[in-house]
Amino acid sequence: MDIFIGLVHFPVVNRRGEKICSAITNLDIHDIARTATTYGAKGFFIITPVEEQQELAKRVSSHWIEGIGGQFNPDRKRAFDIVQIVPDLATAENSVRRISGRTPVRLATSARDIPGCISWEIFEKRVYKNEFECILLLFGTASGLHQECLDYCDGVICPITAGTGYNHLSVRSAVAIILDRISQFRRQ
Amino acid sequence: MDIFIGLVHFPVVNRRGEKICSAITNLDIHDIARTATTYGAKGFFIITPVEEQQELAKRVSSHWIEGIGGQFNPDRKRAFDIVQIVPDLATAENSVRRISGRTPVRLATSARDIPGCISWEIFEKRVYKNEFECILLLFGTASGLHQECLDYCDGVICPITAGTGYNHLSVRSAVAIILDRISQFRRQ
Repeated sequence: MDIFIGLVHFPVVNRRGEKICSAITNLDIHDIARTATTYGAKGFFIITPVEEQQELAKRVSSHWIEGIGGQFNPDRKRAFDIVQIVPDLATAENSVRRISGRTPVRLATSARDIPGCISWEIFEKRVYKNEFECILLLFGTASGLHQECLDYCDGVICPITAGTGYNHLSVRSAVAIILDRISQFRRQ
Repeated sequence: MDIFIGLVHFPVVNRRGEKICSAITNLDIHDIARTATTYGAKGFFIITPVEEQQELAKRVSSHWIEGIGGQFNPDRKRAFDIVQIVPDLATAENSVRRISGRTPVRLATSARDIPGCISWEIFEKRVYKNEFECILLLFGTASGLHQECLDYCDGVICPITAGTGYNHLSVRSAVAIILDRISQFRRQ
């Protein structure tokens, strides 16, 4: 199964549920690139329509790929090799098709319960049965993916919970947990 | 099982394997506090002997517990409620004893293969059989825990790997993955 990660900065919601475009967080790029590379993801898309933000992400990325960052830390260079900065979901999806040769199943993630979300039990079975050849996993920054983004997807995976009534994970932690779970499902 | 997390800033090693004291990273505190609270950990220790660094961590923490941060974001306040800033491992362990009433099994984590490390298969069985009443999981910042810290522990858990030959996770991601795995083991 080819796995691609999309970190969405638009359209997402703020704490009041309003549609916003969030700013790029440097550490999101580093942490998620490292996690995605550890778990063999084929691509990590940073999705933002704001050109200045795209430029910022490209500067960070090229520091590690072509600049002195990569000489100092070749492991970080390898992680940044899978990073792509794209303006929207459609461009990310087109890039997945070029890299994988497949149309991805678009799966959104959410910290909130979304009606009809795919339970972890069902998702585990489907991964184990190898039902997905290629997935594009979308993660929302700020307070999560906007409804438009959920509507765009083929499904939403249910929240990560652990029975404490508290599930306020950072997006960096959520990506790590979800990629690890998928890796465990495939191994069983 | 009572779970406690320790984020060690001393003694850790740098890229050349030299013993150092690392600086506190603000986002480590936030991310790990949120993850630890999601998974019901009973405490999260930030371990550094440097008083200025302890003061910094306390300022960040009190902003969210007593300051306007907690009013703005009560979820973050709840996460910071389990944060403790301590000078060394022994103080963390004493605090665990006070909170849990038990002596913790001290388990180190490592991104490198340590001779005699506890495999994930064995660790899963031991968690599933409820062999641990209380654990203190230690995570190293910088390039990982110093040998002295490994020697202090009752065991070292083997690295998280996913068959890619690359396992350069941030400590924030490693904590998230390990707490999620333990939660899955207990649930099975």
